[in-house]
Amino acid sequence: MTLTLYAGDPNSISIASHILLEELALPYDFVRLNYAATEQRSSHYLAINPKGRVPALATEEGILTETPAILTYLATLKPEVGLLPVHHSFAYARLQSFMAYLCSTVHPAHAHRMRGNRWSDDPAVIEALKLKVPQNMADCFTLIETEYFGGDWVMGESMTIADPYLFAIEQWMESDGVDPQHFPKLAAHRSRVAARPATQRALARYS
Amino acid sequence: MTLTLYAGDPNSISIASHILLEELALPYDFVRLNYAATEQRSSHYLAINPKGRVPALATEEGILTETPAILTYLATLKPEVGLLPVHHSFAYARLQSFMAYLCSTVHPAHAHRMRGNRWSDDPAVIEALKLKVPQNMADCFTLIETEYFGGDWVMGESMTIADPYLFAIEQWMESDGVDPQHFPKLAAHRSRVAARPATQRALARYS
Repeated sequence: MTLTLYAGDPNSISIASHILLEELALPYDFVRLNYAATEQRSSHYLAINPKGRVPALATEEGILTETPAILTYLATLKPEVGLLPVHHSFAYARLQSFMAYLCSTVHPAHAHRMRGNRWSDDPAVIEALKLKVPQNMADCFTLIETEYFGGDWVMGESMTIADPYLFAIEQWMESDGVDPQHFPKLAAHRSRVAARPATQRALARYS
Repeated sequence: MTLTLYAGDPNSISIASHILLEELALPYDFVRLNYAATEQRSSHYLAINPKGRVPALATEEGILTETPAILTYLATLKPEVGLLPVHHSFAYARLQSFMAYLCSTVHPAHAHRMRGNRWSDDPAVIEALKLKVPQNMADCFTLIETEYFGGDWVMGESMTIADPYLFAIEQWMESDGVDPQHFPKLAAHRSRVAARPATQRALARYS
């Protein structure tokens, strides 16, 4: 089986899939796109992922995009590692719900700081969209801190594929204007994931 | 098993979960929130879903939110109906990827028309965010029309849980300033889903 991960910078959401590849000890090739040169919009990459975004995962059966789907697919390649509760449909759905919240609400809230041009062509509007990012991200982190973390991991007592995903977003706290000290569970979680050898191996690929 | 669906208006994304309940012939209770009275922000409903949005699905094991997770959970209650390719991990991941695209990119693109206050407190900015909605939605529909529909259904030859989800979004075309005639596959799909008895039964609950 050949897997190729197409990723951006280490602060991109693609780091979640990258960490999971390392956690699962799956063999993979790694292609880092040059975002400074907008390589994600090159004709070469658009032929791989017409969305012009990262991550993308090339598999023997085709290309996969979208972080929740890539994380789920990778975990099903090694179910014995136990990062996906495949035998408990409610726990599984709750995990999918959390990842859907990250991709549908939290990530777009963040994107209004750097990617406002997605939703407006007016430079003044794009600038104005940055103002509410700290509040929106703090609201999202408050919900996660309050409603999740029944244990050391976001879904409870066991690590799941949602943990590297949340870690990638926790890395944005300071630049999004959120004070980590207001979110002790999230700050501890971020340190816990950062300390894992798999995370360190993934991050080392960008240095 | 008792299921309760909390839904909004019939043009809300909650109609996707509602149609699937009917397709699967699952018994359920139906609670329509009064959006005109902002019942979705009432303390009663916030105790059910702290996000203050629809859909929410109450199950015997707890509350589920987020459309991709609710659709996946419902389909696993009746795997014999075959709306989820549970035995083919790549097809399953591709379906999850499509639903993640709908919730992370397409739905937020739409939301900038009516829900701009999520991302700005400035009335002029909120108004300005409406301008790019037709282009963004047309771009999303172009990608779906081009990259999907290997058959009558969005994922190919077989209907899946993604079809009622896409239908809910296709219903927004005219109000989002998109001409359905530019998207013949999507227009035919919308008619195909609209004609199904399950869709008609779900929509009849709002009349």
